[in-house]
Amino acid sequence: MGMTMTQKILAAHAGLPSVKAGQLIEAKLDLVLGNDITSPVAINEFEKCGANRVFDNTRIALVLDHFVPNKDIKAAEQCRQTRGFAGKYNIKNFFDVGRMGIEHALLPEQGLVGPGDCVIGADSHTCTYGALGAFSTGVGSTDMAAGMISGKAWFKVPSAIKVVLKGKPTGWVSGKDVILHLIGEIGVDGALYQSLEFTGDGVTALSMDDRLCIANMAIEAGAKNGIFPVDEKTLAYEKGRFQREIKVYEADPDAEYTRTVEIDLAALRPTVSFPHLPENTKTIDEAAGVKMDQAVIGSCTNGRIEDMRVAAKLLKGRKVADGVRCIVIPATQAVYLQCIREGLTEIFVEAGAVVSTPTCGPCLGGYMGILGKGERAVSTTNRNFVGRMGHVESEVYLASPAVAAASAVTGVLTDPEKL
Amino acid sequence: MGMTMTQKILAAHAGLPSVKAGQLIEAKLDLVLGNDITSPVAINEFEKCGANRVFDNTRIALVLDHFVPNKDIKAAEQCRQTRGFAGKYNIKNFFDVGRMGIEHALLPEQGLVGPGDCVIGADSHTCTYGALGAFSTGVGSTDMAAGMISGKAWFKVPSAIKVVLKGKPTGWVSGKDVILHLIGEIGVDGALYQSLEFTGDGVTALSMDDRLCIANMAIEAGAKNGIFPVDEKTLAYEKGRFQREIKVYEADPDAEYTRTVEIDLAALRPTVSFPHLPENTKTIDEAAGVKMDQAVIGSCTNGRIEDMRVAAKLLKGRKVADGVRCIVIPATQAVYLQCIREGLTEIFVEAGAVVSTPTCGPCLGGYMGILGKGERAVSTTNRNFVGRMGHVESEVYLASPAVAAASAVTGVLTDPEKL
Repeated sequence: MGMTMTQKILAAHAGLPSVKAGQLIEAKLDLVLGNDITSPVAINEFEKCGANRVFDNTRIALVLDHFVPNKDIKAAEQCRQTRGFAGKYNIKNFFDVGRMGIEHALLPEQGLVGPGDCVIGADSHTCTYGALGAFSTGVGSTDMAAGMISGKAWFKVPSAIKVVLKGKPTGWVSGKDVILHLIGEIGVDGALYQSLEFTGDGVTALSMDDRLCIANMAIEAGAKNGIFPVDEKTLAYEKGRFQREIKVYEADPDAEYTRTVEIDLAALRPTVSFPHLPENTKTIDEAAGVKMDQAVIGSCTNGRIEDMRVAAKLLKGRKVADGVRCIVIPATQAVYLQCIREGLTEIFVEAGAVVSTPTCGPCLGGYMGILGKGERAVSTTNRNFVGRMGHVESEVYLASPAVAAASAVTGVLTDPEKL
Repeated sequence: MGMTMTQKILAAHAGLPSVKAGQLIEAKLDLVLGNDITSPVAINEFEKCGANRVFDNTRIALVLDHFVPNKDIKAAEQCRQTRGFAGKYNIKNFFDVGRMGIEHALLPEQGLVGPGDCVIGADSHTCTYGALGAFSTGVGSTDMAAGMISGKAWFKVPSAIKVVLKGKPTGWVSGKDVILHLIGEIGVDGALYQSLEFTGDGVTALSMDDRLCIANMAIEAGAKNGIFPVDEKTLAYEKGRFQREIKVYEADPDAEYTRTVEIDLAALRPTVSFPHLPENTKTIDEAAGVKMDQAVIGSCTNGRIEDMRVAAKLLKGRKVADGVRCIVIPATQAVYLQCIREGLTEIFVEAGAVVSTPTCGPCLGGYMGILGKGERAVSTTNRNFVGRMGHVESEVYLASPAVAAASAVTGVLTDPEKL
């Protein structure tokens, strides 16, 4: 029996000729990631272990992104602890306020993760880097601590679901609609502890930003990881960016999958996940008209330059509806800068949106757009659980940047095509 | 005995031929202001009174600026209540997220306050509009409620200190240095319940942005208000901006002052207020070298376009020091937009600063740059009280945008001239 793409990467990192689903292995890590919320917990564990060195100071990334610029004293203390640790152990990839971005947009952008890598991060959306052909998954802070000390982690080798993408998306349909549709199909536990292995001719039709968005939300179907094959677009993206040797792994033709799901990209419609689970999807045709108080365009899911361009295209020359707060959050300083240079930021501000410095902010109810009782947001973020963006009686509707921008203009969930 | 400029405005608004210091009067209000923190308290009082109308829906300004985009659920609820009130009473000057700015930068910019006005605001820095030749002062939320109902307020007519400004500032000296120097001279209670009436040939050397900064901090010397004569620069500023009739009041030649303070602008040096009072001033020559963790450039005191230009001039082609967070906060959406158009935002981001959407944020320890234990910030804001920007063991050093920007680059308090 052959191996899936994920299994091949894990076997290589475990130094084994082959692995199979369910097997426990110890794998070498190419990168260990933490943020301002999870790193302090990991650092405490690191110190409790009596550790006095990290396995490799070039293979740890500490990114202050969740609650910075410091939203409160606790956030300040968490950043201070992380900053101090980074200084003490000379962590090369420490990203402080002003040098940073949202971790899952920043690490690919900075070339710190790439094809064939085995990466763990103390953040559930670490699965994002699967878009680049890496095995990448979220872990707890204790695993992060162990990873920082040993450069290794234990994994149970996942089985896989094969997701066959066919055709090309049309109109305003983007990667976000693909992943929301998939989660709607298989459910939030549809891929529990499995890999989502994307394949098919439809992959080539998706930009890297689309793939990063799709892989980012693999966890929202319960997946251990999501992963894309490495193709021309991947290699073009990594050129001059990825700093290590590119290793391309492909699934064996006889790899075993627990299930195959086919998605006809051409048939997809802009999709919205209704409260309070990402699996509660409706097409925009079914969803249109629901009144919104806020639109959030950004996050590790949809804060990349293509997302900004789509939002700007729809907001250009238009105004955010009265009574709606439209919050645009470019995911990294580089994206922020590019938005300015391309004239997108001017479009946002002229439309009556506010543009935030990069932060996870509202996505997890941190700050920068928290909802009050009974308020509704259409958001390009990744979770719409009860109280995720504020009050327990608030509601989050997950959508693409196109749907969020169009809805900001009308004040109700809106098909971008009909704006 | 003649009247001061302040007394003349108060007499006119009380419908009296003359008033004198200490007299209790009831004056008509040209504008009543509240923000997202103070308006909910005023609205509760308004409702407790059984009021069912406002005195004039064009003469109330409600500005959401302190904790927006909503920093937490409480902030969301405060905004929701204010938004609801604005809708119910059809308040014309309601400024929501994306249409807003920091109140004391926004109201002058929008032409809502001007020469000869009598204005109250439920925010201590309402004294800012004295720069335009208005009587303007901060009140409690109860007074705001009464003002919204009746269009009137009771005042004890203040006595006045005459501040004679002479000559022209040199080098990097700005309005901020003028007011910090003055507070250093007379102390934080030096002008308790008095007017600070600025006069002298030095006034003409000060830009409107300088004057707005100076009047803004009159309260930090304990003053009831600060006020500038109306001159060519004032009229030029108001042209096409101020929407009501301009009324120019001048102090009588025989007006009584409790004290005269002379300031030779040419002799001033960049000035820094050390923790924990604005009166703890040192010149940059005495202050240079103190290590900083954060630089904040913005606020109602120093978030205007001239402030941004000065900061950009110093940050251009330079980098914020490692270990320092530099947070730039244009005070209004218009200033934010102008920063982009003039290329200032690019300079900030390239230097490693973050640029925030307009907010009071860190100034009052709200969010967007809160200090941890033992951390120090050089800040262009207006107060450096214990714990003002975060932890009780943090420290705030008040300075001009020039000093803050120069210090961001070096990581220590720095004379911009020596950068």
